[in-house]
Amino acid sequence: MLNEEKKWYEKAGKESDVVISTRVRLARNLADMPFPNRMTPDQKAAVERRVRDAILSGNSAIASDFDFVQMDDLSNEQAVSLVERHIVSPEFIANAKGRGFLISKDECISIMVNEEDHVRIQVLHEGLALSEAAEMADRIDTLLNESLRFAFDSELGYLTQCPTNLGTGMRASVMLHLPALTENGAMSRISTNLSKLGLVIRGTYGEGSNVIGAMYQLSNQITLGLSEKEAVENLQNITMQLISEERKTRASLSKNINVQDKVGRSAGVLKNARLLSCDEYMKLISNVRFGIAEKLLSGITLEDIHTLTVAVQPATMAAAHGSNLSAGQRDILRADEVRKALKALQ
Amino acid sequence: MLNEEKKWYEKAGKESDVVISTRVRLARNLADMPFPNRMTPDQKAAVERRVRDAILSGNSAIASDFDFVQMDDLSNEQAVSLVERHIVSPEFIANAKGRGFLISKDECISIMVNEEDHVRIQVLHEGLALSEAAEMADRIDTLLNESLRFAFDSELGYLTQCPTNLGTGMRASVMLHLPALTENGAMSRISTNLSKLGLVIRGTYGEGSNVIGAMYQLSNQITLGLSEKEAVENLQNITMQLISEERKTRASLSKNINVQDKVGRSAGVLKNARLLSCDEYMKLISNVRFGIAEKLLSGITLEDIHTLTVAVQPATMAAAHGSNLSAGQRDILRADEVRKALKALQ
Repeated sequence: MLNEEKKWYEKAGKESDVVISTRVRLARNLADMPFPNRMTPDQKAAVERRVRDAILSGNSAIASDFDFVQMDDLSNEQAVSLVERHIVSPEFIANAKGRGFLISKDECISIMVNEEDHVRIQVLHEGLALSEAAEMADRIDTLLNESLRFAFDSELGYLTQCPTNLGTGMRASVMLHLPALTENGAMSRISTNLSKLGLVIRGTYGEGSNVIGAMYQLSNQITLGLSEKEAVENLQNITMQLISEERKTRASLSKNINVQDKVGRSAGVLKNARLLSCDEYMKLISNVRFGIAEKLLSGITLEDIHTLTVAVQPATMAAAHGSNLSAGQRDILRADEVRKALKALQ
Repeated sequence: MLNEEKKWYEKAGKESDVVISTRVRLARNLADMPFPNRMTPDQKAAVERRVRDAILSGNSAIASDFDFVQMDDLSNEQAVSLVERHIVSPEFIANAKGRGFLISKDECISIMVNEEDHVRIQVLHEGLALSEAAEMADRIDTLLNESLRFAFDSELGYLTQCPTNLGTGMRASVMLHLPALTENGAMSRISTNLSKLGLVIRGTYGEGSNVIGAMYQLSNQITLGLSEKEAVENLQNITMQLISEERKTRASLSKNINVQDKVGRSAGVLKNARLLSCDEYMKLISNVRFGIAEKLLSGITLEDIHTLTVAVQPATMAAAHGSNLSAGQRDILRADEVRKALKALQ
């Protein structure tokens, strides 16, 4: 993870004015082992060894692209930083002892072992790239299948510890920036409509109506009774509709002087603050991101923004600057980093 | 007033980190006329003619330095703008019909006719310049005395319509920027102490504890029983003490990261807002002025700030841009002017 290769979140993606990233994950379990919550430590170690070998052994075509990371080798901050970068789940690090995961050099593919299921394949992609991510997840699945046998039922599909994942075991999601639909109060209507279509939308930061930074995760809920392809297409179509609605609303809002004022002030504060909490950063950068997408601001790309947002999350900062930072010291360092990163913003 | 000569408020003055400006005014009345509130229109016109001639006639040494302005020739916005620039008093324009005043090309000397008294000589000076301003006021007084006879009583001194001006008829004042003493809550103690010394301090903008922009007017209250020289010296000494106390407090506050943050954010908002009320401008520019004086910010001088502050007052803006501006349009224009003027601020 310490190499110089560009990370997925440092690249520009499709529809990146609205879609930050795409994620597809597959839940799989070995046919000859109990589910993780019923395994002994020895069985867990055996599962880990087998998954690890399937990827890293000499026979694997992608062995050299991956590293295995033992959670025990990481500090607490490094572990939380993995969550902030969406590489592993919060559940995975909550009980990290003895756990490990495989990760590709560009951080776009990760394989958690012994999370809720034996194997959780996850593919992250910048921008909107549902079919690309699904294909890549499928390739990893196929590769693992060459040496591992997954629990599969001809009627139920892939067997998973939690019944909500039964079937395809696939969860596909897109992270959306919806400042305009949030601003004009459309999100609660949209959320209700989406749930009728088998999709769920949640704030990525903050809870309920208090979503911070207008960042949302839109994902499929149904894994049973429809194929991976159908689920991905459904999500793709709805995402395109949301993008279109968001863009239309942005175009109208960006002509409003009050909105222009808010965008300008947000840029001004970020470029000049000496103390900056993560919450305030998320709120202000949302306005700036909107301003860049609507060409009210320039000098900085949306990818610069995303790289910065990853860098200033609390644990990622602690991992980079030392874990004995107080919240106040972190706020000073964050303000310094943000000022430096946004120097060219105008 | 429309010439290109530098106005007093565009120049740097002494102790300008704390003292914006100095003002000395003398109240005088003609011996052979009733006080203004008891004069007929004809008598008012006669007083105006005599004062005007005393300055503008061929015999006057300073005739070519002065203009006479008839208030009837000015729009309402131009009149209010004179008050915002401290050239005439609010009382003077409240009942402006038939009134006029003399003003020097550099706007530093004005002579109001038929305000509360027949003659009000006022000298404005950038920075701390009490003796200079008092001397200049004295010169004008002497000059007027060559052709006019002022009401004077050997016991009471100069006779004025309001008894609070009896004696010297002099009011001297300094406009102070005291952001540090305001921030640390010292102003109410200071105000109490000053009143015991025969001085009064008031917010220049805003009322009571709600002073806007930490701008204060410190002036002498006593005109009877002490000479002009004593009054000026007293005010000068107290001002120097206040300057010293303010500077000490600034030096300590400017090391505080919260204060640095506030200064930075204020600069950021002023440099980027698209809508700016005069109230908000006054609050933010106070922090910026403090930041420049304490070298937390650079690129802009204190004189630039003062020129800008005069330019963005409501009536001055209306006089410059047309009187049919709505408050919202004025806030847009103000934000534009401020962004342009503070471009180099960093």
